[in-house]
Amino acid sequence: MTGRWVVIAAARRARPNDLASGADASTVAGGSCPFCPGHEAETPPEVYAERDPAAPADSPGWSARVVPNMYPALGPAGAAAPPGGGLYERRDGVGAHEVIIESSEHGAELSQLPLEAVERMLRAGRERSRDLGRDPGFRYVQFFKNHGAAAGASLEHGHAQLVALPLVPTAIEEEMSGAARYGERTGRCVYCDMLAGERPEGRRLIRRDDEMAVLAPWAPRVPYETWIVPARHESAFDKTDDASLRALARALKETLARLRRLLDAPDYNFLVHTAPCRSPRLPHYHWHVEIVPRLQPIAGFEWGTGFTINTMPPEEAAANLLHVEI
Amino acid sequence: MTGRWVVIAAARRARPNDLASGADASTVAGGSCPFCPGHEAETPPEVYAERDPAAPADSPGWSARVVPNMYPALGPAGAAAPPGGGLYERRDGVGAHEVIIESSEHGAELSQLPLEAVERMLRAGRERSRDLGRDPGFRYVQFFKNHGAAAGASLEHGHAQLVALPLVPTAIEEEMSGAARYGERTGRCVYCDMLAGERPEGRRLIRRDDEMAVLAPWAPRVPYETWIVPARHESAFDKTDDASLRALARALKETLARLRRLLDAPDYNFLVHTAPCRSPRLPHYHWHVEIVPRLQPIAGFEWGTGFTINTMPPEEAAANLLHVEI
Repeated sequence: MTGRWVVIAAARRARPNDLASGADASTVAGGSCPFCPGHEAETPPEVYAERDPAAPADSPGWSARVVPNMYPALGPAGAAAPPGGGLYERRDGVGAHEVIIESSEHGAELSQLPLEAVERMLRAGRERSRDLGRDPGFRYVQFFKNHGAAAGASLEHGHAQLVALPLVPTAIEEEMSGAARYGERTGRCVYCDMLAGERPEGRRLIRRDDEMAVLAPWAPRVPYETWIVPARHESAFDKTDDASLRALARALKETLARLRRLLDAPDYNFLVHTAPCRSPRLPHYHWHVEIVPRLQPIAGFEWGTGFTINTMPPEEAAANLLHVEI
Repeated sequence: MTGRWVVIAAARRARPNDLASGADASTVAGGSCPFCPGHEAETPPEVYAERDPAAPADSPGWSARVVPNMYPALGPAGAAAPPGGGLYERRDGVGAHEVIIESSEHGAELSQLPLEAVERMLRAGRERSRDLGRDPGFRYVQFFKNHGAAAGASLEHGHAQLVALPLVPTAIEEEMSGAARYGERTGRCVYCDMLAGERPEGRRLIRRDDEMAVLAPWAPRVPYETWIVPARHESAFDKTDDASLRALARALKETLARLRRLLDAPDYNFLVHTAPCRSPRLPHYHWHVEIVPRLQPIAGFEWGTGFTINTMPPEEAAANLLHVEI
């Protein structure tokens, strides 16, 4: 009815969860975490790492590491799924699901790591987005992070994820269609116009440099939803150059630190919104990062309507974030 | 960009929350709950009640009671909101937000109440849907329930809610469009076809009588998502007659009891999907109830893509629900 796909992934039920209620995080921190140095053999072989060139793959001595997810939502093509039949559509769950282990430190939250570590995480995301994006079977790479149990994380050790999909997600299609309609009407990029409009007034703008703007968007879905938008037009995250990536790392680290201080270390999701794989440069779409603090669960009104109720106006959120001391 | 509205409702920040971590539910149960008998003066005056005819309004002696929400997401028309200006759209937050207090018992979960109480809750929802639906300012009435903190409930005392909206929610529009496309192609209702298709095979069907079918839908968004669909075609919940309402109460009570037993009393949302207010009978849309257990939070993949990852195939969920002893 709605055209939205569901990934049925029963094998993921077997995955460990050290953030479930009752799990003993200290035991995990004490030695059984598969993402900690010395446990490289407990993950699938790494597909990317930043490490001492003298150290062999899948050994300690790394500062960031990307491995296939042990319990992937999507995987390599196998036997074709039987067709759904009748009313129902079904297709093979073809894709890739990778984990970026951000740091060798077990319990560190991203904003508490040095700038270089934040940059490494983002670089790993960019490199893997580029590589996965070359596969003609993939149409979209979703780069995201779940921090904390309320944001859907199941392991405590700081990590981000990449899911390569065989189709463009509905949420991205909706966003791109909206941006394309605006572009057709005006000839301009709606995100560029948004940044230009925020500049003089500044009531929703939290931070801006030559590379990146941080703002509380109009109509935020949840309290303190915050976006990082590149100041120059670019539709694809994986085209980001090193200077821009460093600026993104600075903006991200500072924004997460502000949220952490203001909201007492909230759980959050970090989402990269970008153009589909191998798109030409799109004049009307603009990649960006959305940070979604998870202060309260999605309730029935939101499930039923697709609208959200937000008790925090973006202007007030921006002022609070701007004035917190970090 | 996406056409989805956000209700900015700063006044709701002031609402009490006895399900927040740290709140002492026993204190609330012990006498300070505004939904308990004897506390009628702590809510706005009732707009509907089932009570002893001798007892005056807003006094004890009721078995179900509907009151305006003290902290409404939407309210009566006031001064018109200033236009958003430039890129942004804004409109007055006109609507209604009511609470159905299901029972005089503080801690009872719906499935543990007598059938008559479940029926009273549904009847209150139908009567208020009818009444709110007559207001020409309202286009949709969302009838729903949040049970438990993970489902967004802030008060422990069992209650459901109605939000009357000045426009049709995006989620309902999407669903109605999908159903209309199917109807145009085939001349039939997709929900009626779904029920007809489930009958012989029965692998996703959990319960069926002359009035209501209970099933695990194809492509459920979360583990144990369960739908209750009227066996006879009808597009509007508020047209339901008393016999059908009683059958819905039976199906709902039994389904919630199965979920409660199987999943250890999970938090859940109950959502009525129905046609917009004052629609004629729509041949291609079919009202129904969606029950969404909230076993795990929505994670970054879901926020980013609009797709979901579900570790529980619907056929397995249906078998587990069917075989649990209640």
